[in-house]
Amino acid sequence: MPDPRPLAWADRLAKLYTPVVADVLDKLGYRNQSFHPRVRPLWPTAKAAGFALTVQTVPARDVVPRHPYAGELAAVDALAPGDVLVVSESACSFWGELLSTAARYRGCRGVVLDGPTRDSLAIQDMGFPVFHNGFHPADSLGRLDVVGHNLPVVCAGVLVDPGDLILADHDGVVAVPRAAAEETLRLAEEKVSGENLVRQALAGGMTTTEAFAKFGIL
Amino acid sequence: MPDPRPLAWADRLAKLYTPVVADVLDKLGYRNQSFHPRVRPLWPTAKAAGFALTVQTVPARDVVPRHPYAGELAAVDALAPGDVLVVSESACSFWGELLSTAARYRGCRGVVLDGPTRDSLAIQDMGFPVFHNGFHPADSLGRLDVVGHNLPVVCAGVLVDPGDLILADHDGVVAVPRAAAEETLRLAEEKVSGENLVRQALAGGMTTTEAFAKFGIL
Amino acid sequence: MPDPRPLAWADRLAKLYTPVVADVLDKLGYRNQSFHPRVRPLWPTAKAAGFALTVQTVPARDVVPRHPYAGELAAVDALAPGDVLVVSESACSFWGELLSTAARYRGCRGVVLDGPTRDSLAIQDMGFPVFHNGFHPADSLGRLDVVGHNLPVVCAGVLVDPGDLILADHDGVVAVPRAAAEETLRLAEEKVSGENLVRQALAGGMTTTEAFAKFGIL
Amino acid sequence: MPDPRPLAWADRLAKLYTPVVADVLDKLGYRNQSFHPRVRPLWPTAKAAGFALTVQTVPARDVVPRHPYAGELAAVDALAPGDVLVVSESACSFWGELLSTAARYRGCRGVVLDGPTRDSLAIQDMGFPVFHNGFHPADSLGRLDVVGHNLPVVCAGVLVDPGDLILADHDGVVAVPRAAAEETLRLAEEKVSGENLVRQALAGGMTTTEAFAKFGIL
Amino acid sequence: MPDPRPLAWADRLAKLYTPVVADVLDKLGYRNQSFHPRVRPLWPTAKAAGFALTVQTVPARDVVPRHPYAGELAAVDALAPGDVLVVSESACSFWGELLSTAARYRGCRGVVLDGPTRDSLAIQDMGFPVFHNGFHPADSLGRLDVVGHNLPVVCAGVLVDPGDLILADHDGVVAVPRAAAEETLRLAEEKVSGENLVRQALAGGMTTTEAFAKFGIL
Amino acid sequence: MPDPRPLAWADRLAKLYTPVVADVLDKLGYRNQSFHPRVRPLWPTAKAAGFALTVQTVPARDVVPRHPYAGELAAVDALAPGDVLVVSESACSFWGELLSTAARYRGCRGVVLDGPTRDSLAIQDMGFPVFHNGFHPADSLGRLDVVGHNLPVVCAGVLVDPGDLILADHDGVVAVPRAAAEETLRLAEEKVSGENLVRQALAGGMTTTEAFAKFGIL
Repeated sequence: MPDPRPLAWADRLAKLYTPVVADVLDKLGYRNQSFHPRVRPLWPTAKAAGFALTVQTVPARDVVPRHPYAGELAAVDALAPGDVLVVSESACSFWGELLSTAARYRGCRGVVLDGPTRDSLAIQDMGFPVFHNGFHPADSLGRLDVVGHNLPVVCAGVLVDPGDLILADHDGVVAVPRAAAEETLRLAEEKVSGENLVRQALAGGMTTTEAFAKFGIL
Repeated sequence: MPDPRPLAWADRLAKLYTPVVADVLDKLGYRNQSFHPRVRPLWPTAKAAGFALTVQTVPARDVVPRHPYAGELAAVDALAPGDVLVVSESACSFWGELLSTAARYRGCRGVVLDGPTRDSLAIQDMGFPVFHNGFHPADSLGRLDVVGHNLPVVCAGVLVDPGDLILADHDGVVAVPRAAAEETLRLAEEKVSGENLVRQALAGGMTTTEAFAKFGIL
Repeated sequence: MPDPRPLAWADRLAKLYTPVVADVLDKLGYRNQSFHPRVRPLWPTAKAAGFALTVQTVPARDVVPRHPYAGELAAVDALAPGDVLVVSESACSFWGELLSTAARYRGCRGVVLDGPTRDSLAIQDMGFPVFHNGFHPADSLGRLDVVGHNLPVVCAGVLVDPGDLILADHDGVVAVPRAAAEETLRLAEEKVSGENLVRQALAGGMTTTEAFAKFGIL
Repeated sequence: MPDPRPLAWADRLAKLYTPVVADVLDKLGYRNQSFHPRVRPLWPTAKAAGFALTVQTVPARDVVPRHPYAGELAAVDALAPGDVLVVSESACSFWGELLSTAARYRGCRGVVLDGPTRDSLAIQDMGFPVFHNGFHPADSLGRLDVVGHNLPVVCAGVLVDPGDLILADHDGVVAVPRAAAEETLRLAEEKVSGENLVRQALAGGMTTTEAFAKFGIL
Repeated sequence: MPDPRPLAWADRLAKLYTPVVADVLDKLGYRNQSFHPRVRPLWPTAKAAGFALTVQTVPARDVVPRHPYAGELAAVDALAPGDVLVVSESACSFWGELLSTAARYRGCRGVVLDGPTRDSLAIQDMGFPVFHNGFHPADSLGRLDVVGHNLPVVCAGVLVDPGDLILADHDGVVAVPRAAAEETLRLAEEKVSGENLVRQALAGGMTTTEAFAKFGIL
Repeated sequence: MPDPRPLAWADRLAKLYTPVVADVLDKLGYRNQSFHPRVRPLWPTAKAAGFALTVQTVPARDVVPRHPYAGELAAVDALAPGDVLVVSESACSFWGELLSTAARYRGCRGVVLDGPTRDSLAIQDMGFPVFHNGFHPADSLGRLDVVGHNLPVVCAGVLVDPGDLILADHDGVVAVPRAAAEETLRLAEEKVSGENLVRQALAGGMTTTEAFAKFGIL
């Protein structure tokens, strides 16, 4: 039986860029794999590639919950090497420095939140890549609960199944469906080579119309 | 009679972080003290702590006002050492380099606007901490008026009374009600110590579930 | 016949700042020339000044268009020295590194998009000034078409006619109507001098009320 | 001394329409007197005209306030015949059937809220004209406080001074500055007559271009 | 063992109003049970009360899905007498006339969608109560999938567990947690009686301040 | 040469419904033909079907334009029997009772605006179908200009070419590309028949799963 989560995939993905991966997914008929652009990296060169461990959040029902943080901590404690944590919508800070410390210890390669983070400068100092939609000082306690992890979730407008490949960089975040991973990686690696030729031609003065006619790439 | 505005409070607050202050305010029952995350610092390490001098803005009625800038300048001229200027909603630039120059001369420790600023690179060069919701080249003249200062105002979704303590950093902005200032400072200083223990435990591999059970902090 | 596009105008404009230009346009009765603040520079000191070459985008009708990129490439290939490309609303990435390479070759001084860009770090490495409203990995193909260039367009809430002067910096983007270009440049250059006097007075402790009464500038 | 609040003004205003009043205010140089269109009547033919009694709301600081509803009730109890209550922004229901009952008893001619209402069908059954931005079951208690009434307030993007004339109908809400009331009423009454002629001409087949050239009205 | 879903609860709830239920839930400490006001009834007197059968939607991954509508139809076919279908966020039309026909046959008392509906006039003609956030001609096929029903879902900002009681009327939608159902019904029925006394007092001229002091209700 | 604008098409379209037309367009590969749901009919049973006469609006540059209304009136005067006026984005009222009077005289079958209207009750009394995104008292003069008509325009997120078929009803607005008109009409008429069978089956108790398996329609 083939390894369902070959870490080599994550390593190859980490050498690619979200635009080229998005272009290949478009070609394969997956046209809704780019997260809403409100999700941004904590610092410009932050990059994360790995397998999605998904988390489903809901607004808290009780200001004083019976089991504070229970679902959130269970998700973090379940992280394994090569994982990228992907968290559905939140309006307060699900994430911070202490959870980053725990996640990094477990081999987590990054976090993608459709919500704000806090302790942002400390996390950046750690060099732990977090992708988020803003900053918020207030904690999730009494505001947000986690009802489960490793379910299909919606994050920033994209369906993410547990185990999908995630690539996040300065241009955005894309989810690669597991079934298309091998083919996506191969085609994206090919496209990167082609773009180098086009760049050279354009830098030498070829019109974009000619370049596209000649190389079929843009 | 105790000093109603002990500068020592502002100095202690300046050594804290908005997340820890927000957590303490949550615990004391003040759960709506974090400004909307659209308010951001002009540069990543900008930080401001002090007593709120509040400003109430309104859309301008006249394109050519009788007393241009009158309310705005009165507010700036009223600034005293230890103040943080807190300005209600605006759609154009209330703030710029010249007002920053005047405010700094008066001992103002920073400005929090639910509106855009301009002259942004010059203000950053001065190192004067401005928290704002964007950038806009256009001036307030004929677009915005000030109807008073040192009234209760709403800034980015939070009620701010004149004299409330304000802390603003890279994670956001929080208002500490005057009545809770002493207790908030004390509890926040305690919490910072506790977090150091948790961080150490997590970096050593303790699960987050165990850590929260043991330390009761996250 | 006077040169309709004197490059000297673009060069003078490049030495000014969007706030002072916006103030002068206000005074001349043009009060809606500042782009919506969602349009931001790719890096803090990015600046562009030049003549608008406008591009009209529309949502794509066909996922597989008959002439992919045709209108987009025609616009880029039409760029001449001193031009700033101004592109109407888009929800995916109209712009990237390859088009930046082609545009720079043609003497284009910058790009202003009411839409996202991609290849953002590569473009920043090139030092080619792009102003945009976010980042998006996904390409325009099958999402966006160009129906023409050098038509009047709306970009970020402002009408831009082909040949209008555009200034874009860290405080935002302003469009200077061609008919007002000479007068705007002259008045803006004068205002910059006046502001130096006010800054000095305020730094020396003059109240803003006195300073405005004395200099009439803020 | 002239009556500062002649009820005859309110009665004349009630016979007019918001578009014609907005056109006249435009001509007099007041171009920001129309409320944001999110404010809608409770039923299509609801109409209100009178003098603004303004209310300034803020987010509640305490979930269990010391003096629940105090400011809100003080404002309602201050209503006099000919008043229209104008309430600044709220996210929950400031208004309901019981307050409508009290307001109507005091001669209040209607309510304009930049917030939701509740008990909406009951209020409609009473025929008491409420203009609001939606419906919400939740009460203001612990969510919203009133810090004062008869101050200048911002309602749906428009500055309203106490005593301004308010007209609200199916096309929206306009505020007429007190100083311009007499002239606005006179010019609006004249414009209504002119429009009757244009309507007749257009119904008979005159082109709109000819009609505007001939009558100067549209 | 008590009946976990006594239909008598749904019947008692149907005689109440969302504002009084929201007030009681507030008092019991459940302060986030009112749906976002974007959810509106299809016609003014539409009302629905019953037990939530929840549906979890996600954006579709495939334009041509392998099992079109499978999850959606499974949810509808699972409806039992007394149910109210509660559907999480969608951007196209999950609901229409045919599904209304099927749902009504199964005894479903209404549908609450955080999304648009279609066939809106036909559904209104049927008298089947649908609460929705707008209208949209386009179908869910290839745009939306259902990943499960009777899971905890978020609908218009509120956590809904399967079996929670739902009340929807012209003022909005509230979810009553099952555990609080009996107490909420009892207290709400009491509050309705109290409000009748206050209404009478206010209609007779008592000030609202006196009325609140005397009755403690508003 | 075939009639490029057979009125019979408009008449057949008027007997259909936007959902069935949207379903057929989806099947033909046109998946972005439904207008954003912010565009609503002036009254519930308003319906319009005809050929698009498109209007391109821009924000006004001058508060006092040289040729007031010129482009707007030219567009209205160009209307011919069978036309539906389709107007791009506006923030104030482009449309009102007088223009409705003129348009109806010319045989215009309705107006679709991605902007507000005014004189709304009067237009409804005329029975002239207007689809709009809200109500606003303020006129377009000095706020909006028209730069041309019968160009490709974007209205509520959809590309509309002059001469496209437009259908607007209570469920929304769809644009049918001219090239697909004949086929769309035929397939939509067939689908309406099929739906009658499904409705009957569901009303008789067939599960939706069985019905979809049997009829292949929903």
